[in-house]
Amino acid sequence: MKYLRVIGPQTQPEGSYGILQEDAVHLLDCSPLLESARKTGVSFSVGKVCKFLPPVEPPNIIALGLNYKQHAKESNVELPPEPIIFLKATSAVTAHLQPIMLPAEAPLEVDYEAELTIVIGKLAKNVPEQRVFEYIFGYTCGNDVSARDCQLRRDKQWARGKSFDSFAPVGPVIETELDSSSLRISSKVNGKLMQDATTAELIFTIPQIVSYLSRQMTLLPGTLIMTGTPAGVGFARKPPVFLKPGDTVQVTIERIGTLENPVVNE
Amino acid sequence: MKYLRVIGPQTQPEGSYGILQEDAVHLLDCSPLLESARKTGVSFSVGKVCKFLPPVEPPNIIALGLNYKQHAKESNVELPPEPIIFLKATSAVTAHLQPIMLPAEAPLEVDYEAELTIVIGKLAKNVPEQRVFEYIFGYTCGNDVSARDCQLRRDKQWARGKSFDSFAPVGPVIETELDSSSLRISSKVNGKLMQDATTAELIFTIPQIVSYLSRQMTLLPGTLIMTGTPAGVGFARKPPVFLKPGDTVQVTIERIGTLENPVVNE
Repeated sequence: MKYLRVIGPQTQPEGSYGILQEDAVHLLDCSPLLESARKTGVSFSVGKVCKFLPPVEPPNIIALGLNYKQHAKESNVELPPEPIIFLKATSAVTAHLQPIMLPAEAPLEVDYEAELTIVIGKLAKNVPEQRVFEYIFGYTCGNDVSARDCQLRRDKQWARGKSFDSFAPVGPVIETELDSSSLRISSKVNGKLMQDATTAELIFTIPQIVSYLSRQMTLLPGTLIMTGTPAGVGFARKPPVFLKPGDTVQVTIERIGTLENPVVNE
Repeated sequence: MKYLRVIGPQTQPEGSYGILQEDAVHLLDCSPLLESARKTGVSFSVGKVCKFLPPVEPPNIIALGLNYKQHAKESNVELPPEPIIFLKATSAVTAHLQPIMLPAEAPLEVDYEAELTIVIGKLAKNVPEQRVFEYIFGYTCGNDVSARDCQLRRDKQWARGKSFDSFAPVGPVIETELDSSSLRISSKVNGKLMQDATTAELIFTIPQIVSYLSRQMTLLPGTLIMTGTPAGVGFARKPPVFLKPGDTVQVTIERIGTLENPVVNE
């Protein structure tokens, strides 16, 4: 099932959750993370959507660094013995077709990172690897947008360079029926293929990631976990490629869809 | 005014917000961050409180590293040219009198950090220093509990070592009428004074911190900002002092109150 949240005909003014089936949006009466969620009976063509919203309002965004071998290699760093985790501010979340804003504080080295993004469905603590799928609601496309000057030179902690407003685009949908172990994941900038890999190349797998994180902290429902990005990011290219106003970034994950964001100055 | 959230006689089962006046809790009909908040007319003695809850449910917890000179010195690091910021997971929040849990993953080097903690009241973006007080709802006591083995040796990113469950005790109240520029701040472990300073010693002041952060990201209502800890933390002592089961940690800030937490094994 593909879940989304949109503003459109007959939605709540602040938007409504819905199910995408073929080209129709069927509205729900509440977040699909709640077991009580039911279809309202209202539906409309996805072409009538006025605005896509993030498909979830996360209480935390946890992200992994260096979780594809080729990306670790292009970044000139050793493979990590355990997952490298960091947090992105929840205020950074944005939606499909909403702009990635180059922040006035650090506009010059903004980079894309296509990431398979897990949506946690139930409170998860100390979950063994073989049971993580009971706690995963679904998967969405994520872009772990990063200001490389902050991340790599100005700061030692990555929080700021990863948390500017609009630096966490997610969507357009959460796919709940999906074997995530071998999905093609790619990104394009202005139509040009920049990253192209499969989730089979993840160093730490989805069960390992969720189990590990659940031993560090309680994963609240709606938590987003960005699982790391494959090779091909902008800063590692020769010459480097950074996002500039007027660009369009697309993150495509097989069987989920394409998350597209234009780039603008803040 | 002192705001709190408690479970007690005639509160909602999940707790209610209230105002503490002298020894009486006057219940509110919603969060005091909402302008519509009104007293319900129900009140009871603070002695009848069954459980204190965190006085706010933060969308983000932003924290500053190394914001007192003496603490930077005891940590053997240079003074930062701009604020060092990191994030703590919102799942780490806990309340007055609730236990700090030594995590099974890293139980041996858990340390306390008394911190004046700002509660943001209104959406804040690009706020000049002279206007930050319009955006600050109030102040509470915070303890930026840290697993030093993770923070200083196992990880480069501080997120994990600062985000274990119960690693962000806050409370007991939010004080909204307060000049925060020169308040005594101290911590005690088992009654022994460990940190003792005043907020006049902050390297980056409250107006500088809030203005700076509001240029990095939109500060959502309820955001907690932990403003850094003074000298006297456990890991810098000779020999080091780490928290152990049975300990009690108190963070006291003048005119706000005392946040007390027992220490237990997870």
